[in-house]
Amino acid sequence: MNSDNLLALGRLVDQRHLQPALGWRRGFENRLSHLLSQRRLPEQGWSEPELELLIRELALLDMNNANSGSCIGVGEREGRVVCPLVYRRHFGLAHGIGRSGDVTAGQPKAAGSSVINSLTNSLLGDWLRQFGCPKAAKCAVLIPVATGMALCLCLLSLRSSRPSNAKLVLWPRIDQKSCFKAIITAGFTPVPIEPLLDGDQLVTDVTAVRSLIEQHGPDSIVAVMTTTSCFAPRVPDRLADVAKLCAEFGLPHIVNNAYGVQASRCMNLINDASTKGRLDLFVQSCDKNLLVPVGGAVIAGPDAAVVSRVAATYPGRASASPSTDALLTLLHLGRSGFARLLDQRAAAYTRLRDGLASLAGRHSDCVRLLDTGKNPISLALCLRGSGSSSGGSDPGRLGAALFRRGCSGARVVAGGRQARLRRSSDRISVRALSERCRRPGHVGNEVDSFLVVLDSLLTKEFRQREIDSRVADADEQGDNDYSKDQLTEDLG
Amino acid sequence: MNSDNLLALGRLVDQRHLQPALGWRRGFENRLSHLLSQRRLPEQGWSEPELELLIRELALLDMNNANSGSCIGVGEREGRVVCPLVYRRHFGLAHGIGRSGDVTAGQPKAAGSSVINSLTNSLLGDWLRQFGCPKAAKCAVLIPVATGMALCLCLLSLRSSRPSNAKLVLWPRIDQKSCFKAIITAGFTPVPIEPLLDGDQLVTDVTAVRSLIEQHGPDSIVAVMTTTSCFAPRVPDRLADVAKLCAEFGLPHIVNNAYGVQASRCMNLINDASTKGRLDLFVQSCDKNLLVPVGGAVIAGPDAAVVSRVAATYPGRASASPSTDALLTLLHLGRSGFARLLDQRAAAYTRLRDGLASLAGRHSDCVRLLDTGKNPISLALCLRGSGSSSGGSDPGRLGAALFRRGCSGARVVAGGRQARLRRSSDRISVRALSERCRRPGHVGNEVDSFLVVLDSLLTKEFRQREIDSRVADADEQGDNDYSKDQLTEDLG
Amino acid sequence: MNSDNLLALGRLVDQRHLQPALGWRRGFENRLSHLLSQRRLPEQGWSEPELELLIRELALLDMNNANSGSCIGVGEREGRVVCPLVYRRHFGLAHGIGRSGDVTAGQPKAAGSSVINSLTNSLLGDWLRQFGCPKAAKCAVLIPVATGMALCLCLLSLRSSRPSNAKLVLWPRIDQKSCFKAIITAGFTPVPIEPLLDGDQLVTDVTAVRSLIEQHGPDSIVAVMTTTSCFAPRVPDRLADVAKLCAEFGLPHIVNNAYGVQASRCMNLINDASTKGRLDLFVQSCDKNLLVPVGGAVIAGPDAAVVSRVAATYPGRASASPSTDALLTLLHLGRSGFARLLDQRAAAYTRLRDGLASLAGRHSDCVRLLDTGKNPISLALCLRGSGSSSGGSDPGRLGAALFRRGCSGARVVAGGRQARLRRSSDRISVRALSERCRRPGHVGNEVDSFLVVLDSLLTKEFRQREIDSRVADADEQGDNDYSKDQLTEDLG
Amino acid sequence: MNSDNLLALGRLVDQRHLQPALGWRRGFENRLSHLLSQRRLPEQGWSEPELELLIRELALLDMNNANSGSCIGVGEREGRVVCPLVYRRHFGLAHGIGRSGDVTAGQPKAAGSSVINSLTNSLLGDWLRQFGCPKAAKCAVLIPVATGMALCLCLLSLRSSRPSNAKLVLWPRIDQKSCFKAIITAGFTPVPIEPLLDGDQLVTDVTAVRSLIEQHGPDSIVAVMTTTSCFAPRVPDRLADVAKLCAEFGLPHIVNNAYGVQASRCMNLINDASTKGRLDLFVQSCDKNLLVPVGGAVIAGPDAAVVSRVAATYPGRASASPSTDALLTLLHLGRSGFARLLDQRAAAYTRLRDGLASLAGRHSDCVRLLDTGKNPISLALCLRGSGSSSGGSDPGRLGAALFRRGCSGARVVAGGRQARLRRSSDRISVRALSERCRRPGHVGNEVDSFLVVLDSLLTKEFRQREIDSRVADADEQGDNDYSKDQLTEDLG
Repeated sequence: MNSDNLLALGRLVDQRHLQPALGWRRGFENRLSHLLSQRRLPEQGWSEPELELLIRELALLDMNNANSGSCIGVGEREGRVVCPLVYRRHFGLAHGIGRSGDVTAGQPKAAGSSVINSLTNSLLGDWLRQFGCPKAAKCAVLIPVATGMALCLCLLSLRSSRPSNAKLVLWPRIDQKSCFKAIITAGFTPVPIEPLLDGDQLVTDVTAVRSLIEQHGPDSIVAVMTTTSCFAPRVPDRLADVAKLCAEFGLPHIVNNAYGVQASRCMNLINDASTKGRLDLFVQSCDKNLLVPVGGAVIAGPDAAVVSRVAATYPGRASASPSTDALLTLLHLGRSGFARLLDQRAAAYTRLRDGLASLAGRHSDCVRLLDTGKNPISLALCLRGSGSSSGGSDPGRLGAALFRRGCSGARVVAGGRQARLRRSSDRISVRALSERCRRPGHVGNEVDSFLVVLDSLLTKEFRQREIDSRVADADEQGDNDYSKDQLTEDLG
Repeated sequence: MNSDNLLALGRLVDQRHLQPALGWRRGFENRLSHLLSQRRLPEQGWSEPELELLIRELALLDMNNANSGSCIGVGEREGRVVCPLVYRRHFGLAHGIGRSGDVTAGQPKAAGSSVINSLTNSLLGDWLRQFGCPKAAKCAVLIPVATGMALCLCLLSLRSSRPSNAKLVLWPRIDQKSCFKAIITAGFTPVPIEPLLDGDQLVTDVTAVRSLIEQHGPDSIVAVMTTTSCFAPRVPDRLADVAKLCAEFGLPHIVNNAYGVQASRCMNLINDASTKGRLDLFVQSCDKNLLVPVGGAVIAGPDAAVVSRVAATYPGRASASPSTDALLTLLHLGRSGFARLLDQRAAAYTRLRDGLASLAGRHSDCVRLLDTGKNPISLALCLRGSGSSSGGSDPGRLGAALFRRGCSGARVVAGGRQARLRRSSDRISVRALSERCRRPGHVGNEVDSFLVVLDSLLTKEFRQREIDSRVADADEQGDNDYSKDQLTEDLG
Repeated sequence: MNSDNLLALGRLVDQRHLQPALGWRRGFENRLSHLLSQRRLPEQGWSEPELELLIRELALLDMNNANSGSCIGVGEREGRVVCPLVYRRHFGLAHGIGRSGDVTAGQPKAAGSSVINSLTNSLLGDWLRQFGCPKAAKCAVLIPVATGMALCLCLLSLRSSRPSNAKLVLWPRIDQKSCFKAIITAGFTPVPIEPLLDGDQLVTDVTAVRSLIEQHGPDSIVAVMTTTSCFAPRVPDRLADVAKLCAEFGLPHIVNNAYGVQASRCMNLINDASTKGRLDLFVQSCDKNLLVPVGGAVIAGPDAAVVSRVAATYPGRASASPSTDALLTLLHLGRSGFARLLDQRAAAYTRLRDGLASLAGRHSDCVRLLDTGKNPISLALCLRGSGSSSGGSDPGRLGAALFRRGCSGARVVAGGRQARLRRSSDRISVRALSERCRRPGHVGNEVDSFLVVLDSLLTKEFRQREIDSRVADADEQGDNDYSKDQLTEDLG
Repeated sequence: MNSDNLLALGRLVDQRHLQPALGWRRGFENRLSHLLSQRRLPEQGWSEPELELLIRELALLDMNNANSGSCIGVGEREGRVVCPLVYRRHFGLAHGIGRSGDVTAGQPKAAGSSVINSLTNSLLGDWLRQFGCPKAAKCAVLIPVATGMALCLCLLSLRSSRPSNAKLVLWPRIDQKSCFKAIITAGFTPVPIEPLLDGDQLVTDVTAVRSLIEQHGPDSIVAVMTTTSCFAPRVPDRLADVAKLCAEFGLPHIVNNAYGVQASRCMNLINDASTKGRLDLFVQSCDKNLLVPVGGAVIAGPDAAVVSRVAATYPGRASASPSTDALLTLLHLGRSGFARLLDQRAAAYTRLRDGLASLAGRHSDCVRLLDTGKNPISLALCLRGSGSSSGGSDPGRLGAALFRRGCSGARVVAGGRQARLRRSSDRISVRALSERCRRPGHVGNEVDSFLVVLDSLLTKEFRQREIDSRVADADEQGDNDYSKDQLTEDLG
């Protein structure tokens, strides 16, 4: 409503009642003005009625929402919605984002969707800069695909800048299927590099990276792909060291920062690497960091042209849904709201670490808390007296038991199955992420609940089953399979 | 609500008032049962309250929506939503679809989202079979990416089955940027094949396709990519002839069927080709055919394994949003509702054709309606006396004038700019698509409105400007640029 | 969004894409400006995105939706909502309307809700004036209570202006419980006046009205309450004749116009009466005329002070929900949309009348279509050969059979039960109201469906049961009771 | 979804993924079953997806939401909705509640709405019993009208049981307009009874009540109306003493318990009175206690027949909106959620009391915190050195200043204006109600903010203005008027 119409409301209500409302209404416009001119994450989050107003304003700028007299959509293929439930849940935003040439390009028929696209990308850049990457996040772009697919697009965008026979992607290995597959899908060959064991921690073998570069020759290599966020006892890669190697050999460097915005340590690694060496692109998941539904990834980097090239690689218009979710969430949280989430996450880590330590003390005959202080998110217990000798079935049983009790986020790995990683024992790994966020308003003390369940399993069931472990029954095999199935999921 | 609880409502209300309600409630369960067992598009669409109930039922099966006591989500990265507005618009569906291994795989933590994914794909297959492709659409999968990106994934999925030096994609040329870019992004080299002029129509040069296959050798070719839906005077490719060549030389054949489900002729071409020759995959846009927001494509084909391989190519979990939109829309329309949309589209084509013919009669000195009967959707007027001789500026002016008057879907092309297509004159092309669908409940008579505007432009402005055409003013140049800009959009 | 911020969007998107959107956005503001200055029903309805934007704008003006910094709500009892689902469905409008002194007064803490309240009342007045009551509807007020309760409030508001011993309300009888009860609840004594039989029609006995006034004396009478909309064979009261009597004796005259806005004849009667005699207030139901959920009534009259006195009678703040529904619906329809509903209703009447006539022709031995042309909405069939002689059980059976087949809106009356109304036979009465409106987008040809069911019942079941009618079985008694129960409903 | 269809989902997804979901789905049905059989407030609140599912289930039972084939709504006046935005916000619930005979009666055409109505009333009864009135709340009914109108209906329902010349309602006076008006609207004569000053507190003059009963005679009295929740220094009425008098003289006793459910002390007074004497009905506001939008009141009492008589007094069907809001909120909170709100409120009272005491200490020359411990919600400061001598203008100025700073809930009263209440000084009264509830998710520390503002006003502005107080300027007069206006609001 423009200022004239707001004032015209005074014909309908008492001026004295209207004045205060016009005051905070002006405040809203001022904040909006600031947002549009600065395109930075606001300090304070916006309220729900303000977000509703903003999104309706923007929706009205798309051609399909224009008044009938204003537009004649003969021949329009897009921007038409027939099911009311679908129309409504998208606020009428139907045109998607981008054009065939570039997913960041404006849509001539959808000024509102285009504003959402552009503003979201600006705010995402600011968000990354504010939360640990002031240098590395010169530019950011949301692509409405999963993290793995985003990594794939990054690799595809590099193709033209690399020698035609470059096929290899050096990849310090992590247990995560999507990034491996991203390399395959892009038509390249992954070269996994096993981690080194440093105390309890599995760390990047930088020497092996250098050897492999020298062995294959830089021209046969498309890029090096490192990782920040992973399950303990694996810790984040030595990004700066790898970045220096990439600078030395002129190799592109892509970072899989899946849920790394949740931990300042991961972000600092990225920023540091971008100043000390070469770091082309880093990719993070929208859902894992911004707490939105699965479906988008943020691609960022220190050189806007490189980031834009990825955006220009996506052929066709794309869904505006992930951008809309990201914009609403960023404005809902504000800088302070996201900082609060990070604080909660750090507190959950401490509570989980202390809880696991105490639990490991009580069950010292069967578990030990690994010392993995460089992993800011995940912790791991090693399971003593199980492992390859017992055929890997016990960890599977424990994993299934946890799942049956509703603990879906922990991951149980049989050491024997991945001996090449030199991990000598079965393990339970678990991440400490922001709580209270399963859905809006959800309040849970899930760390404590998890510790109670795990304690009970270790006390009663697991140890009792130790005794029974020589008896294999068909039913357990089923559980076992299930657990394998679950592992695959955790890998992806 | 299960049957016991429905009956328990009788404690709160008069049994005689409850009985009729339980009757139609039973009818709903019966239709649902039929849907789940047959997984076919229902004949009649479902009502909004029924769709609301279904989607809420499914949402409650996802782990993030479970009662707090049931689940302990410690360590879960996905399925968490912090902004109420976002949570609500996705009905709480946050886990996305698929797993790292396969975008059609079930999500262990999201049974509801998995049902949506699976059911949508089944219904999409039935939809394609019912509307023209009983043979060709053995299997269908929605991938939450744009059509161009879906074509790219199709090509990427073929790589492993082709010789390692296969790089070329033969492509009977159309004026659409995304499919061209899809080839590039996939890392292959497009080989455009110019169309032949047959009367007014631009048709596939099948002889050239054969020559190119023989010239380059089948082993250097990844696939042939044909097209069904396009702007007149281009008409759909000769799919069956190309399919026969593909069968003869053992070449994969991919069809870009962007908005072809809207025309039975396009669908028949696909089905026919799949029986007479080789057709591996055909791809259609969700938004253009199902009238949902931009963001998904349906990949289908006669061999389920080939289609599944594309689904397995996507690395990572994907957005459930396009599948949800598609499911709601398919159930909203039912078979009869979609058939009604097709009838409306056919009627709009007739009205547009007759209207353009009549208009061309009145303006016979400056325009002529091209005879392009093989294109079931698009029609074209050639602009007499403009064209390359006049430097291409007039069609641009006309395009901009149409856009300014709200006619966004028509496309004006300067013949001179694409002389290699042997199209000798400037043209206006326009498609006849389903009306009444810009948003739910929207009623428009847009064909007539368009004809009025075009008539007025041809009468007053265009001809007057003919006179002025020697005077170039800077302002017009701006318009001109704008028109060029618009053309690019029409190309993508 | 104010004009500056709209222009600032040009920093985020291409100016050429933004310009057209700003054009129709301006159009929206112009229509809004016109609405606020004229406060008249717009000719064309507004689109859903426009309504969404308007309601969000207004919601933001209520104090509970203000930014946290702007308001300190310590001690506020109202305007607080704890359940998200409730908050959202009211768009955050929580303060209700009015103040203790007057339900039309502005709320100091809720400028937005106050605008809704004021604007709705203005538009309702215009709506009544445009659709038949240019004179009678000088002022209109929505009270969020049912029609019966609204009639009760009208009577209560008259108390102070009548002699203290005035207790009687003269009431030309109709079969509708609420208006009778409204008189009782107000603490007065209804004096029913039986209708006269004029041909097939039951009409107002104006002579009896005069006699009763003279018999009891005007000072013992609070008001005369007449009715426009009713079941055939009852026809609308002779409003003008009664109005003349009221003028003659100085008596207030209240009209129950429950669903009368649907028929111009009813509205004309009211307008005519207000010019020829005395008519103080007329009351119509929101749900029956505006097609909104049950819960509001519109009180109107030729003297604003009289209407305002009713509003001032309601003690306390009231729900804003019915006003919000009415505003959204009036803007959704516009004048032309409501006119279209009336046309559809008139067409449904014609189709029903012709269908019943044809059906009566086919079943002339058992039913006859009554000639009740003065009732513009309802029609009635008399059931030959049933009636009091058969103990009233057959009509009950027919009513129950209709209900079981889903025909809920027809009403079957046993003549014997209301012999004092001199209606000699059992009857089926049915109203022809706007179709297609059970829910948005609902398309039905319900008149035809009804005729098919009735035809089938008359043919098969009813006549067959005639034969069986001497056998009373317990089950049928149940049906019978049910039917009685249904009748009560139809009476209220 | 019935059990068979839930199991049939196993055709679409992996059984192992479905099983856990079916587990918590069963839990939902069990809780629902318990709810329907016990009709008591659940201990734990339900989640949003559960509430969404429940309300959609119920909506589908209303005839207007039935599948087209199932119902033929010819002639139906209600249950039709034309505006999509309106339809949706009511979940399709359009039929309202009740029938002409009784607002608690079931609607034959709306089994779902009827369940909502019946279940809400049952839960409200349990809620009142659980939170302090185990005896007094034998039965409860929500009437969709404001508290004042509900009090009016209570009085109207008593009419038939009182002698025909009973006209008086004895009313220990409070500063609240609605209850006064409720008596007038019902056609009775209020007899205000001034409170006594007991220390700082204003308490019920029970002796005066007895004198007035004896003076007028019980037969001339309709009822005694007492109050629990009020602004300090007024404290809750001595309910038990009045109840004993009512028992002694056979007089109905109605309690205005507007926001009293928020304080156990108020509820205990009611329960105590109902055991020690006569208490017929007590009335509470939905919005003030349940934190829903304005529009409903809960009428309860120890005798179900008496409560039902009030329900039967409302003429016509009523809005289902307030019942729907109440049901959703009660299930959202659960018993524990409401208990948590009460704890927060009690904590806010303590924080406010301590804060005001500290502030009064700092400003002891100009304010004093009154000792009003019997009022569990409201506190008051008396303003020293202002008052009648200064003509009452200063408190007005202070009230306006508070309002301008966003403190809308405090109330400033000039002692001189109500000298008959023997309150010798100007006062600020403020209530401590539940915080964090302005809208869902709203977090505020409003008590502290209020104290800061008040402190600043007392320090700077107020005292400075003391000096200026002899200079009257026109502008201040305006503020003054405004403050008067605000007071009126606080009175209603």
